[in-house]
Amino acid sequence: MTARPLEFHPVSGLPEIRAGDDLAALVAEAVRTSALDLADAVVVVCQKVVSKAEGRSVRLADVEPSSEALRIAHEDDKDARQVELVLRESRRVVRHSRGILICETHHGFVCANAGVDLSNTAGPDEAVLLPLDPDASAARLRAGLREQLGLEVAVVVSDTFGRPWREGLVDVALGSAGISPLDDQRGRRDRQGRELVVTNMATVDQLAAAAGLLMDKGSGVPVVVVRGWSPAGDGRVRDLVRHPDEDLFR
Amino acid sequence: MTARPLEFHPVSGLPEIRAGDDLAALVAEAVRTSALDLADAVVVVCQKVVSKAEGRSVRLADVEPSSEALRIAHEDDKDARQVELVLRESRRVVRHSRGILICETHHGFVCANAGVDLSNTAGPDEAVLLPLDPDASAARLRAGLREQLGLEVAVVVSDTFGRPWREGLVDVALGSAGISPLDDQRGRRDRQGRELVVTNMATVDQLAAAAGLLMDKGSGVPVVVVRGWSPAGDGRVRDLVRHPDEDLFR
Repeated sequence: MTARPLEFHPVSGLPEIRAGDDLAALVAEAVRTSALDLADAVVVVCQKVVSKAEGRSVRLADVEPSSEALRIAHEDDKDARQVELVLRESRRVVRHSRGILICETHHGFVCANAGVDLSNTAGPDEAVLLPLDPDASAARLRAGLREQLGLEVAVVVSDTFGRPWREGLVDVALGSAGISPLDDQRGRRDRQGRELVVTNMATVDQLAAAAGLLMDKGSGVPVVVVRGWSPAGDGRVRDLVRHPDEDLFR
Repeated sequence: MTARPLEFHPVSGLPEIRAGDDLAALVAEAVRTSALDLADAVVVVCQKVVSKAEGRSVRLADVEPSSEALRIAHEDDKDARQVELVLRESRRVVRHSRGILICETHHGFVCANAGVDLSNTAGPDEAVLLPLDPDASAARLRAGLREQLGLEVAVVVSDTFGRPWREGLVDVALGSAGISPLDDQRGRRDRQGRELVVTNMATVDQLAAAAGLLMDKGSGVPVVVVRGWSPAGDGRVRDLVRHPDEDLFR
């Protein structure tokens, strides 16, 4: 017996995004071409195109590395200008070794290189940084899509992160709008009537993870439309970042 | 423009699973009823039903707590018999506080209560443990489904874990068969021809995460069939557990 499936539709056909582009208009155009029904849809947009549209690109030639950046770059055999950008984007360096810097960004995300990315950028000399406020980016995209398409969708801005203990990367949500990042099942009961104590699902991360399967870096799919998941509530991914004092996994 | 969507079909209608049940036959029966095309499918099965079929249930009344279990139970206001089971399932306790024990299981998974679960069990006195070897469980299910259905599917055994730094739980893979846990994009090139250095996606975790959206603990959906993802390669989730020396996130 099956109920309605959950569908993830890859959306391609967006042009190379440049600073100042109206990303909502471009996404709306690509989605319109796809003839997808967007009622109750969640639109997952990869961070890279959001950052590019928001002008979060930096030419390495314009970056003056600090002495700390030079030191780390020397130890890890990295480009000191890239390290400088990583340090500027970081609240703290968690660890660095063998060319990999694990950082806590100013948003509170823990990821490699503080999200500073040199792949799929406009040129060999260009780095793309994370959006300054990915929840605000999601909210702007949502408002733009409402204006362009005349309907409400939820928006998730996603990126690809590593994690402790397990090899491999997974996609997670950096920002959200029109959907609650957590589906709080606490207080509900299991099928035997016992209270579900700690079941508090990170819905936006689960949606981002599946969308990421279609956003293979070589595929040119920066947008995925999720159908069959009725987004409930509203909230910010920022509130999903756990306070260090609450974190028993540290 | 869109390509083929990725579809996650919830499969319900399984009976309450008991020790010794032929889970592959029951899943095959439920899937047959759904009339889903299973060519190239990935079948995600939640750990709970796998463990129950494998007899990994324990009656709390039969558990004699050790002095360490009594001490932790006293400090954290927990059932000492449950703590005893958690300790038996653990290689080490990462931290414990406020009723939550974060443990590294004998498999190398880091999760709350070493996966010992008291919800959706057969009775209030019953705890369900993780499968002893979830990769082997997945391989057996795969062989059973091949026999029952006459075709090859990939199988992922999933569970719901917390994680550091972020609130909320996500589903991850505990075991796999007929699919490579990692989609190694290293060595491939981005759209500008630059080598993708660290893009090594944990495909099975991304699939488990999305399947988890449909496996809400109250929903009675223990199986999700993924269509539109062609499983490639083969491998074990065990190999996805990162060696501590390689883990810059620790």
